[in-house]
Amino acid sequence: MSDAWLDEVCWDEQGLVPAIAQDIHTGRIMMFAWMNRESLKLTVEEQRAIYWSRSRKRLWRKGEESGHIQRLHELRLDCDGDVVLLMIEQLGGIACHTGRESCFFRKLDQDGEWQVTDEVLKSPDAIYAGKVSHE
Amino acid sequence: MSDAWLDEVCWDEQGLVPAIAQDIHTGRIMMFAWMNRESLKLTVEEQRAIYWSRSRKRLWRKGEESGHIQRLHELRLDCDGDVVLLMIEQLGGIACHTGRESCFFRKLDQDGEWQVTDEVLKSPDAIYAGKVSHE
Repeated sequence: MSDAWLDEVCWDEQGLVPAIAQDIHTGRIMMFAWMNRESLKLTVEEQRAIYWSRSRKRLWRKGEESGHIQRLHELRLDCDGDVVLLMIEQLGGIACHTGRESCFFRKLDQDGEWQVTDEVLKSPDAIYAGKVSHE
Repeated sequence: MSDAWLDEVCWDEQGLVPAIAQDIHTGRIMMFAWMNRESLKLTVEEQRAIYWSRSRKRLWRKGEESGHIQRLHELRLDCDGDVVLLMIEQLGGIACHTGRESCFFRKLDQDGEWQVTDEVLKSPDAIYAGKVSHE
């Protein structure tokens, strides 16, 4: 496989592209993060989600500390070429660093309050036990 | 409803937040766009997706030209508060300006080629007939 497909991605001025991770089994949106060219290339090579951490300015192999790896099943590109969609299998069933299935665990109710709709499946302390920092 | 919920959104340095639109019936990711504070407020007030067009630097009432309005069913916020997810009903069944159901109509195949997986349901000429410009 050549790298030509990477040239069809429209990287932003920081060399990044937004990445949406969707659970292939449930259809749920698990998280949203960013990728640079290297991380997207590695994501396909290793068949697991590898993001670019903007805060830590380094590659972020999702699950590297938590074990909550995202196995890649399908990679999609949008019409403008500037957003990628990853259909993934979420190992451990937890994508969020708070210990919830999805990062999108708050829903706006009719009173204009963000309500938490998801329970914590595993405490962050347990997820990141013995690790220097969480994801 | 007060506007306090808007203060819990972490806007980026341009005052924007990424917005993912997911079809509430099929679970398919239809498109990705950006919102500013005004557009997100209006999205909730009018119960339809209203984005901020970065290229045109104005509010973009999705469907204003095409008729392909996105009715809001649910609004979600992620753990960091910097991405919103809209569960929507896609009027006309077409979200993409190319006339396809979803903007994510290209899939990377095993040979490293982006393959178009979705058919054009309605030609852009027909969608935007008589309009100055398409979305």
